[in-house]
Formats: sequence, structure tokens, C-alpha cells
Amino acid sequence: MKILIATTNQGKLKEFKRLLKDLDIEVLSLKDMNNTFEVEEDRPTFIENAIKKAKEYGDFYKLPVIAEDAGLEIEALGGFPGVYSARFFALSTFGGEEPVQDNKDRANILKVLRLLENQENRKARFVSNVVFYNPENSTEEEIDKGFGLWSEGYCYGEITTQPYGEEGFGYDPIFKPEGYDKTMAQLTPEEKNKISHRGKAVRKLIKNLSKLLS
Amino acid sequence: MKILIATTNQGKLKEFKRLLKDLDIEVLSLKDMNNTFEVEEDRPTFIENAIKKAKEYGDFYKLPVIAEDAGLEIEALGGFPGVYSARFFALSTFGGEEPVQDNKDRANILKVLRLLENQENRKARFVSNVVFYNPENSTEEEIDKGFGLWSEGYCYGEITTQPYGEEGFGYDPIFKPEGYDKTMAQLTPEEKNKISHRGKAVRKLIKNLSKLLS
Repeated sequence: MKILIATTNQGKLKEFKRLLKDLDIEVLSLKDMNNTFEVEEDRPTFIENAIKKAKEYGDFYKLPVIAEDAGLEIEALGGFPGVYSARFFALSTFGGEEPVQDNKDRANILKVLRLLENQENRKARFVSNVVFYNPENSTEEEIDKGFGLWSEGYCYGEITTQPYGEEGFGYDPIFKPEGYDKTMAQLTPEEKNKISHRGKAVRKLIKNLSKLLS
Repeated sequence: MKILIATTNQGKLKEFKRLLKDLDIEVLSLKDMNNTFEVEEDRPTFIENAIKKAKEYGDFYKLPVIAEDAGLEIEALGGFPGVYSARFFALSTFGGEEPVQDNKDRANILKVLRLLENQENRKARFVSNVVFYNPENSTEEEIDKGFGLWSEGYCYGEITTQPYGEEGFGYDPIFKPEGYDKTMAQLTPEEKNKISHRGKAVRKLIKNLSKLLS
């Protein structure tokens, strides 16, 4: 069976492939489909962004899809960047824009560090919402086609005062998971998957996916 | 198997019982549990409100749960009342408060009719997001417990200029489904379930629920 991973983020794709490697499925990426359009993640919650991506790519490519929306929630920022995590640097209405010099991950990180300067409460969590959607489940009479699996995972920790490590992607260099003396970007991919929000959410999903597909 | 229907809305509960009656499950209501707390539906999307209710009631009662959030989206009102459907009468920030004289459904309806006075575009849709959550799926190591099924259903139609009919609940008396000369409140329960947003969402869910539970 083929499953499309609906992400244009290469870091995420790598982690998904590793998490799904023991399943009897062929993992396809949007690149494999020569995909040329991006589904806008404009909804106010992770789960709805994930469902939106799953349905739009699934209906277009007529393939079962796994899609994710994930982000970083920082307590002292009232949950921000949240669903804006990937484009936080450009969010002028919260904390001002951050210039992108080398890359977007770096600009996002600099904005968070700036907003948390002199802030003692550095508690944060990574959130992942993963959904599975199979367009073939849809029958003609039920044209709106909305059915699937959902799962969520959290990873609690705190924001460091400067970036450390080269692994992972996104905010990993400034996120120190609870019980660790390293940032997420200082862990090996295996170590990260074991404790990460994404790892937890995906493991729950695939545990039940086989039942649904049987 | 027992499944808890996480709603305090008696009209909804009746419809769920009818939709689930052919399944080999014992349907429990919050009333059956002598439930005394209500989960606040304060999230910005239907699906997240549904998941929130499912998890909170499921974890509390240690039972598999079906939960729904549903609402009416009116095109000329930019999608309002949406997630505010049940408490639209009290939403002072959109269209002003509507006094409750006899009941809340009636106040909600009067507010919609007032806002659509002299409005030619009366297009609207009912949206239902249903989720299934089983707390027993959660393992100790994955303490955040988020996994389940999601499904959605839509019913397209338009808003009448006055209420008709006594069946159903909520906005049914002012919602005329596409292809019908009657409002939702003039349909029999069987007719309504066949075309309703809730009927569509629940049928999709239960078609797959048995696989997951086997």
C-alpha cells in the first residue's frame, strides 16, 4: 500500500520515513508526486490544518495521506508561536517581524530568543497533530469525504538562552526536553523520535492504522 | 461494548441513539453517568471542540466516547454563527445580544433572522464534526492519550425568512436543505438523519469503528 506524506518540509519528511520504516507501506512524498501546489495552513488549530492538508492532497492525488501540523507553544508568550510556528518571523502582529538573513528557522529562533530575553519562565511544549485520511473510504452518496484517524503528541521542556546543536530542524536548537541536558538538536534522530511530539503522535496512529486498513 | 455519547443536548442525544441503534453497542448518555460537569466548548474549530469533549469525558469516565461539535455557517455572515451556534444569542461582539424570552434556540433563530433581514444571499450550511476516542488505547508511556477517529458531514441549504416546523432542534426551523421545500424541522427524524450533517458524519464514523474495535 502507498501512503503520501503531505509535507514540503524535508526535515519532517525524513522523520516520518524513519518512523514508518517498519510498516508494510510504500511512503511517497510530495516531491515524488512532482507536486507543484502548497495547501495554505491558514486554520486556527493544528488539527484542522492537518485535516485540511490531508483532504486536499488526498483528494487531488487519490491516495491515502498522512498529514501533520505541529508547533511550539511557549507559556510566557500565551501559547505563541503555536500554529504560526513555521512563519513566526513574519508575524508582524505578535512581537514584530524578524529579518531573514540566512534561513527561516534561524529567524524564528532569533525572534523567540528576543521575546524571551530576561524572561524567567521558559516553559514550552512541542505539539504534533497527525491525521490519516483515505479518499477511497468516501462513497458517492457522501460526497463530502471527511473521515480518518487523528492523533496528537506532546513534548514538554524549556527554551534555552541560545541555540545548541545541528540535528533536527525548526526550533530544535533552543528546545531542551524535560529530563535532558541537551537540546532537541543535540539528540540523535533515534533519540529525538523516541521522545518527540511527532514520534508519539505517529506511533499512536500507526498502531491503529493497520486495523483500519485490514 | 459501551460507548458514551458526550452531549448534554437532548435533541442531539436522541439523534445519536437513532443513528447508532443497529450497532452492537450499549449507548450511554452523560445523564446515565449522573454527570455533573460540562466541558467548555471554547476552542476556535468544531473538530477541536469535539476532541476536547471526547478526551475530557473519556478520561474521566474511562469509557470510549463519541463526541460532536456542530454548527450553522451562513455565507452572508462570513461563516457565523459557526462554533458560536449554540450561544449565538449571547455573543455581544457579533450582531449584539438577543434577549432570551422562552428558550435559547428561539433567541438564536431570532438573531439570525434579524441579521439577515433584507439580505438576498441566504446560503448556509450545517457542519458536524464527530470524533471517537477510546482512553483504553492509551499506554502508560504515551501519557498524553490522544488518538481516535474523526469524521465530518455537511448539509447545504438556505435560511428561510421565518421559522417553520416543530421537529429537530436548534436552527432546524429556519434551515431549508437543498432540494427540499421544507425546513429541517418539517422533516421526520428518519428524513432528517438521511440528509443531515450529523447523519453523514456519524455514518462514516461507524462504518469504520467496528474495524478499529475488532
